[in-house]
Amino acid sequence: MERTYITIGRQFGSGGREVGKKVAQALGIPYYDKELLAVAAKESGLSHQFLQAYDERPTNSFFYSLVMGQQNLLVGAQNVTVEQLAAKAQRDAVQSVADKGSCVIVGRCADYLLRERGGLLRVFICADWDKRIDRVCRRDGLGQKEAEEKLRRMDKTRAAYYSFHTDRKWGAAETYDLCINSSRKGPDATADLILSFIRG
Amino acid sequence: MERTYITIGRQFGSGGREVGKKVAQALGIPYYDKELLAVAAKESGLSHQFLQAYDERPTNSFFYSLVMGQQNLLVGAQNVTVEQLAAKAQRDAVQSVADKGSCVIVGRCADYLLRERGGLLRVFICADWDKRIDRVCRRDGLGQKEAEEKLRRMDKTRAAYYSFHTDRKWGAAETYDLCINSSRKGPDATADLILSFIRG
Repeated sequence: MERTYITIGRQFGSGGREVGKKVAQALGIPYYDKELLAVAAKESGLSHQFLQAYDERPTNSFFYSLVMGQQNLLVGAQNVTVEQLAAKAQRDAVQSVADKGSCVIVGRCADYLLRERGGLLRVFICADWDKRIDRVCRRDGLGQKEAEEKLRRMDKTRAAYYSFHTDRKWGAAETYDLCINSSRKGPDATADLILSFIRG
Repeated sequence: MERTYITIGRQFGSGGREVGKKVAQALGIPYYDKELLAVAAKESGLSHQFLQAYDERPTNSFFYSLVMGQQNLLVGAQNVTVEQLAAKAQRDAVQSVADKGSCVIVGRCADYLLRERGGLLRVFICADWDKRIDRVCRRDGLGQKEAEEKLRRMDKTRAAYYSFHTDRKWGAAETYDLCINSSRKGPDATADLILSFIRG
């Protein structure tokens, strides 16, 4: 059977994670979001904590690597930023899990990294602003104002990370095969629509 | 029965028109693309030819109205550009056809104009660059280079028109409920997916 790779880009607080999990479950294939960090840590030798700290963070060219010799030796590079080091480990992890078989991968420019592979479906999940605020308030225990600030910051960070590591625009319809506002029908129907697209 | 308004934004040469027609046919409701010009002409008193010339063209603030007294009197305005005059007639036509009942409307910022109405589904259709070139070469009888130029120019024009008349970004996933790359499954399956979304 041909492999299927479903990549899910998502606005912060849009429920993309939940949708991705449902799709993976329905197809009986692995799901990677934060799970990718464990793979990256195991394969790169970098610590899980380090990778988490720089997860989907854009490279800041002013702050050159504070990571010492051992880690530079691991990637065989000098003068790389810590963000680049973390991004490389993540990139390798994306290819590594894709080599193993069909999967759902959330974020981490996976749509771009897997662009040469057959069976790729690039999904983007967005949601209404007020629904995203509600979700983030509830999930992260924040007030309205803090949630708004976090939403704006996280979307900007993801867009910058994506823009740095690809030649495409994060959140632009033309970057993906299918973009869905999850507020219209909820996570179950959104996942069902993705499954229809795959099977149809 | 509740009314359904399906608005279709589209990249030039993406087949959005074809998809929209199929959706309208399946639902048995009217379809408006260029058809909106006839409505606008009839209701505004402006000529069909004039409206066609300024269809989805952004306002150029340097070229103030060359349209004479008679037309300014019609909209009761002075110092409006010809593009604004055409856009107003189109806006009125969008509201007018929506007042009559469910419909599919392609382009003309209809998603924004109908934002306060229930039963609205905002769709955006994009397609792979090479597929769009093929379609435009075939349809408009152009060479590869001319088609590429036309594609770039038309997308820019539509984006500028949309940006001028709304507070949203044309072609950004978050502007719509559903964005589909029609190159993945073709126009029939793309229309089917929209119908699933409406019925699901």
